[in-house]
Amino acid sequence: MDLKQELKKRRYFFNDQLEKFLIEGSPENLYNAVRYLPNAGGKRLRPCIAMISCEAVNGDIKNIISLSIALELIHNFTLVHDDIMDNSKMRRNLPSTHVKYGEPTAIMAGDLLFTKAFESMHNTPCDCSIFKNVEFGLIDCVREICEGQQMDLDFESRKIVSENEYLEMIRKKTAVFFQYSAEAGGIIGGGTKEEINALNEYGLNLGIGFQIWDDYLDISSNLNTLGKDIGNDIRNGKKTLIAVHCLNNAEGKDKQTIENIFGNPKANNKEIKEIYRIFDKIGSIEYAKNRAMNHCQKAIKALEIFNDSNAKNILLELANYSISREK
Amino acid sequence: MDLKQELKKRRYFFNDQLEKFLIEGSPENLYNAVRYLPNAGGKRLRPCIAMISCEAVNGDIKNIISLSIALELIHNFTLVHDDIMDNSKMRRNLPSTHVKYGEPTAIMAGDLLFTKAFESMHNTPCDCSIFKNVEFGLIDCVREICEGQQMDLDFESRKIVSENEYLEMIRKKTAVFFQYSAEAGGIIGGGTKEEINALNEYGLNLGIGFQIWDDYLDISSNLNTLGKDIGNDIRNGKKTLIAVHCLNNAEGKDKQTIENIFGNPKANNKEIKEIYRIFDKIGSIEYAKNRAMNHCQKAIKALEIFNDSNAKNILLELANYSISREK
Repeated sequence: MDLKQELKKRRYFFNDQLEKFLIEGSPENLYNAVRYLPNAGGKRLRPCIAMISCEAVNGDIKNIISLSIALELIHNFTLVHDDIMDNSKMRRNLPSTHVKYGEPTAIMAGDLLFTKAFESMHNTPCDCSIFKNVEFGLIDCVREICEGQQMDLDFESRKIVSENEYLEMIRKKTAVFFQYSAEAGGIIGGGTKEEINALNEYGLNLGIGFQIWDDYLDISSNLNTLGKDIGNDIRNGKKTLIAVHCLNNAEGKDKQTIENIFGNPKANNKEIKEIYRIFDKIGSIEYAKNRAMNHCQKAIKALEIFNDSNAKNILLELANYSISREK
Repeated sequence: MDLKQELKKRRYFFNDQLEKFLIEGSPENLYNAVRYLPNAGGKRLRPCIAMISCEAVNGDIKNIISLSIALELIHNFTLVHDDIMDNSKMRRNLPSTHVKYGEPTAIMAGDLLFTKAFESMHNTPCDCSIFKNVEFGLIDCVREICEGQQMDLDFESRKIVSENEYLEMIRKKTAVFFQYSAEAGGIIGGGTKEEINALNEYGLNLGIGFQIWDDYLDISSNLNTLGKDIGNDIRNGKKTLIAVHCLNNAEGKDKQTIENIFGNPKANNKEIKEIYRIFDKIGSIEYAKNRAMNHCQKAIKALEIFNDSNAKNILLELANYSISREK
């Protein structure tokens, strides 16, 4: 089974449906801004997780497409607003929405993406009571995403963050959405309670593992591979699991060094390298890598209750991919 | 019947319920920002319209409270984001949310208000199929509000706007929300199809009349009464109905004068007064006043099908108040 091919197949199917849903509208500039980021591509991970979870319980993929569109639109809405908050100039190798269309239109485009997500949700073909539950789950999920994003913002200006606080932040900011995608796929696909719970557990751990692996990649890979400036995360005092582990475990001179340099916007390249050396020495990089692997193993274990199927294999491979990918 | 007393009674009841719904949460600063504007007061017009419309069809006001909270939260979410877009520093006599909490947290607070609105919506006690319809109506309403706000933004940089374009803008930006509030009150209250249609017609015309009267007030009342700088709307080229009418109807020297001064950020007070004189001379101020009155008369006429009741009287008085209020 070729994971890339399997994901690509579903992504193409999904992109077709997304394009049909996101038709033109008026005012034109607002709808251009709305379609700008969704049309710029992306992995479509959340829709893929929902679609494959639906298949894993023998559901019809067509029934989950409107919900999958909702997931992707909400993901894009958060990215558009996050880029304004973080003042990120680029996204998916293009100028970010507020750079391209100006901040007022970008704020509005985010709001409209959010609205359109619920509009798409309403096309889900299912019993009314199931719809109500699944939709409420999505609302709850967005609430947690907002809370997680605020925690992330707050952490930057804090000197120290505990590992539990960090884990709660990424659970809310990233993992609940993976969790919801898998669970909703199981529900709309008509899975049993046991299957739905297993998909829930799978999605949650996949999301946590995925996010920690992101942190690990940011540090461990070189600039060319990721196209991201490593130094900036350190200069901004970004609380990744690696940083959190190191700040909580460094002692003596190392502790002093990291406290002086980490979060200092004027840190020079030599100082950045010194932080990197301490991360490595304390074992923080290895620690994060192991935590990511641990969560993905939990995700894999959660799928044990399923009989063998192509969909199950894709979900398993996706968990393995999450902790082996290089971007 | 004392309109102010009747509105106050319902506003107090509503505020109690709103306060219970908007409890504290974590992260604390985000939830403080979320509660900041809703707790700063306001007329609660949309909740009142929904509650009284519910009463007008003999519905129980308790059944509409969760939906009313949703209306107010969505109204507040749009205000928080609009204030960022317009860079408005004050709102309800307080620093606006982004001034108080910073822009990133204000964007997030707006998003969370939007989310909490749907959360509250889900508490509406009604049949599942009714819920689905009423909720979809709200989603559609938010879509139109976003489109209307974008039109308003776009109009500022345009030299000329037709009256129809202006009317479409305020229909979307303001009136659909009044329309929805009245209609949803009728639906949840268990009104007949005829009653629901009448409330729909009432809300739409009330909303248009209300917004045009706002435009009229901005110009006709003096600075002290409104606490708003009239000159700024003229300097910013804000397309009110008065400005639109004048730009489309002025001729000769007047046309030249208004085209030179209107939208000129450097216009001095003498020039502003000159614009005001032309507005008056062309009859644009009177025209806007009459349009507002005309729509409120339509709103009143729509209620003819209802038997006399206290709720009906309040709705009638509200329409009269909309075109007699001085702030």
